[in-house]
Amino acid sequence: MEEAQANKKNAQKAQKQAKADKANAKAEKANAKAAVVPVVIGMTASKETNFSQWYHELVIKAELVEYYNEISGFYILRPAAMHIWNTIRGWFNERIEKMGVEETSFPMFLSSKSLEKEKEHVEGFAPELAWVTKAGDKDLEVPVAVRPTSEAVMYPYYAKWIRSHRDLPFRLNQWNSVVRWEAKQTTPFLRAREFLWQEGHTAHLTEELAAKEVLEILELYAGVYEQLLAVPVVRGKKTENEKFAGGYWTSTCEAYIPTNGRGIQGATSHALGQNFSRMFDITVEDPHKKGEKINVWQNSWGLSTRVIGVMVMLHSDDKGLVLPPRVAKIQAVLIPVGITAKMKPEERTAHMDRVDELRADLKKANVRVEIDDREGYTPGYKFADWEMKGVPLRLEFGPKDAAASVVTYSRRDTGFKGTIPIAELATQVPALLEEIQKNLYEKADASFRSHRVQLTDWSRVVPALNDRNVVLIPFCEEPKCEDRIKEITKSDEVHELGPDGQKLPSMGMKSLCIPFEQPEAIVKGETKCLNPECEAFAKSWVMFGRSY
Amino acid sequence: MEEAQANKKNAQKAQKQAKADKANAKAEKANAKAAVVPVVIGMTASKETNFSQWYHELVIKAELVEYYNEISGFYILRPAAMHIWNTIRGWFNERIEKMGVEETSFPMFLSSKSLEKEKEHVEGFAPELAWVTKAGDKDLEVPVAVRPTSEAVMYPYYAKWIRSHRDLPFRLNQWNSVVRWEAKQTTPFLRAREFLWQEGHTAHLTEELAAKEVLEILELYAGVYEQLLAVPVVRGKKTENEKFAGGYWTSTCEAYIPTNGRGIQGATSHALGQNFSRMFDITVEDPHKKGEKINVWQNSWGLSTRVIGVMVMLHSDDKGLVLPPRVAKIQAVLIPVGITAKMKPEERTAHMDRVDELRADLKKANVRVEIDDREGYTPGYKFADWEMKGVPLRLEFGPKDAAASVVTYSRRDTGFKGTIPIAELATQVPALLEEIQKNLYEKADASFRSHRVQLTDWSRVVPALNDRNVVLIPFCEEPKCEDRIKEITKSDEVHELGPDGQKLPSMGMKSLCIPFEQPEAIVKGETKCLNPECEAFAKSWVMFGRSY
Repeated sequence: MEEAQANKKNAQKAQKQAKADKANAKAEKANAKAAVVPVVIGMTASKETNFSQWYHELVIKAELVEYYNEISGFYILRPAAMHIWNTIRGWFNERIEKMGVEETSFPMFLSSKSLEKEKEHVEGFAPELAWVTKAGDKDLEVPVAVRPTSEAVMYPYYAKWIRSHRDLPFRLNQWNSVVRWEAKQTTPFLRAREFLWQEGHTAHLTEELAAKEVLEILELYAGVYEQLLAVPVVRGKKTENEKFAGGYWTSTCEAYIPTNGRGIQGATSHALGQNFSRMFDITVEDPHKKGEKINVWQNSWGLSTRVIGVMVMLHSDDKGLVLPPRVAKIQAVLIPVGITAKMKPEERTAHMDRVDELRADLKKANVRVEIDDREGYTPGYKFADWEMKGVPLRLEFGPKDAAASVVTYSRRDTGFKGTIPIAELATQVPALLEEIQKNLYEKADASFRSHRVQLTDWSRVVPALNDRNVVLIPFCEEPKCEDRIKEITKSDEVHELGPDGQKLPSMGMKSLCIPFEQPEAIVKGETKCLNPECEAFAKSWVMFGRSY
Repeated sequence: MEEAQANKKNAQKAQKQAKADKANAKAEKANAKAAVVPVVIGMTASKETNFSQWYHELVIKAELVEYYNEISGFYILRPAAMHIWNTIRGWFNERIEKMGVEETSFPMFLSSKSLEKEKEHVEGFAPELAWVTKAGDKDLEVPVAVRPTSEAVMYPYYAKWIRSHRDLPFRLNQWNSVVRWEAKQTTPFLRAREFLWQEGHTAHLTEELAAKEVLEILELYAGVYEQLLAVPVVRGKKTENEKFAGGYWTSTCEAYIPTNGRGIQGATSHALGQNFSRMFDITVEDPHKKGEKINVWQNSWGLSTRVIGVMVMLHSDDKGLVLPPRVAKIQAVLIPVGITAKMKPEERTAHMDRVDELRADLKKANVRVEIDDREGYTPGYKFADWEMKGVPLRLEFGPKDAAASVVTYSRRDTGFKGTIPIAELATQVPALLEEIQKNLYEKADASFRSHRVQLTDWSRVVPALNDRNVVLIPFCEEPKCEDRIKEITKSDEVHELGPDGQKLPSMGMKSLCIPFEQPEAIVKGETKCLNPECEAFAKSWVMFGRSY
């Protein structure tokens, strides 16, 4: 009996051991497998708690940029970013061509001589000029600088080419890169030592014609933000303090980053007035007064790859990039799922053939779609990978979907999941993409609207800024008052996160723009400037905020 | 009687005087008018007798480029040139995108450190590097050079991005400008210190896959020349002497300039082999042998604004530029003629309305058409102006044309004039433009074919070159033999025109390419190399010529 008992116990033990061995072996096998299964290295920083680190991490992991280790402050733009930029380029080019703007390409260098002509304008750029002093091993007789912008490069030729009022309007644009050797901390897209942009330079007979163009271009810039990037902007005029150095007046579209409540300048379109045409002697004979000369009225306007940074900061989340469908290189990714080892090869082939058909249907409907049929990657890996890269729509197709004649989808913007009948794919997917585009814009617009706070009580200004708002206040528009406002809204309260995650004291607010759309009329000679130290009357409602 | 006679005489005299006065007044008026009537400053140099001066004059007067006076060796590309370049860019981009090439943008600077890695390749560029040594007024710790090409800029990142054979083929392209501070005389488009180009850089798993792409790209380059620019090219391989420094082998398309009989390299597509992947350690695991590494096989390929120069030299004439319709910004110019001062204002308006309708019809037919309704310019001025600018088709429309329901046309390529019924404008004008495109190509092709002379008699080589031919000769393909051929074909005979119109001794010939299409088989071990000093057998028929 004892023996029998003991035997039984031993047998049980042996059984247990065998079971454990089997489990171990299974686990080991699973581990071994896990070791070769690639894992998406997801985001580690959180947008809400460490915005700056989150941004730097995101642009790399979503493969928008790569740091250029060789020289600091420079970035490599990768295909996903270039697709966005090229989409903008095509959209904008089509529209300015219709206005009669022509494309040109000026050299990247300017001589020290031509810089001397326009001191006021140049002073701002001088500390950031990159100087070529040698060619091969020989010193250049006259050093040349890489253009930080092209006024000094182009305008001597405007004097030559514009001979008569018949040559007006004279409008040229170029797409290039410019170099500004910033001493400040650089950030991909937002502040880099070299960046891509377009710069338009035009000349007109009258102030009115020039002004009309300034605003037409501004509206196109707003269109780039609102229609392509789903970023709402406020259109307005810059104050004297913030206008382009050497210009007449500057129009701007201003965006807003909800996460830190900062304003960010989107793009600017400048009326240069006659300042440059006087310096460079760009004149035509007055068509109405024979023998009299008119200095032409000039504009310049530029849009840079900064737009991509604004878009990234606004829409993306802790899973990675969120791309508006209109600028996404891949709008929908089609992932075969539920393919198991048990499936017969012919079943598998048949299933993949159906996936190919789905892609063909979508391509016909002008959807930029790709299949992810990488082997050795789990669907989970693929889901995370495409979420990181911001693809607006994920389409899954497995045997169950096939049986039901549907495709399962998941929206990147909301995470919402649903199914679409295969027969309706070619209509519903484009509609869904437009829906995502619209939703991104509306969400951002609602956020911006609810964070533009109109104030008539000075004591509420700094708390409003601390609550991540920009503010609209009655303002006298005086440069000195503006300087003072910046000074007195500085706060020692420590609540913002800097580039390395450390706490920083809050910066003062500066004027973002005088919005063209005023919330209500300013009663002249009645409404006071909101700055408590200022005795002047207000001229307009001005949008102030902490800003980039 | 005497008195009567005298009176008559006097009367006659007075009449004569009055007539003369009237004539004088008319002439004066005409002169005064002439003084304000603009006159096209036509070409002064002739293509046939002073080719170089003709070319330099033409590119300025046709408004393709402007000299950049500030810094020598740089040129401004004007809208007519940018239109050509953008047409090429669009055409080429569409095709490489289909191949799976993606766009990128790397910084314009490279550090001295990264240059050290690939000495052989860099040596050739070193004397032409533009060095930035200062930013603002501060010296840079490490000087940086403006890229002359981007191998050294890009390939360190290829090592980072290419992790597995699944990442292959890896293909990036960028459109940018590069700087090569040439010591040689510069020429617009052909040799400038800064020029626009595209540079493609790709990596492949095997030699075969890489080679396939090299030739696919070469075929696209040939397409740019033949299909867009109406320039025939010979496709072939470069000899060892002429291949890309540091590369494996180079494919090329070679064009020909009939006026001086010189060959000109059109564009090159390089197989880099594994040289760079060894230098930059770009490897993947062998998919067939676990644990073993393979250095990837790389290619690079570039097409520059040089193409525009070749096109200009080939088709243009003493009246100015001749543009192939497919790249012309303005394909047809519509000039109202026969509008006299006698015409009633309402007749004039009605006529101009009809001109507007003609333009609308042509625009609908996708013709890039413009009306020249400038006042104060004679039709003769306008004709000369548009001929100078190379517009392929001139359309004239006067009251007589209106009465006959036709438009009168004049072809820029042949000068042929005819009429087109208005009802057929939308079909005949596009057909005529294609006919012009075809004619330009065929004329150039016939010229190139008749000047590619196959020779088996050494004594005929130099005379053939002097007769503006390129030659096809049996050649051993040995670098030293090639050097020697260049030496012994130099001629003291003075018959060529240099940049300033002076006579120059003739340069020796160099190899242009080993054409893929051989005129006949070389009998191995039988046909001798044509160089009389060479004892070796020929390997192939090689195209030699004086060249740019």
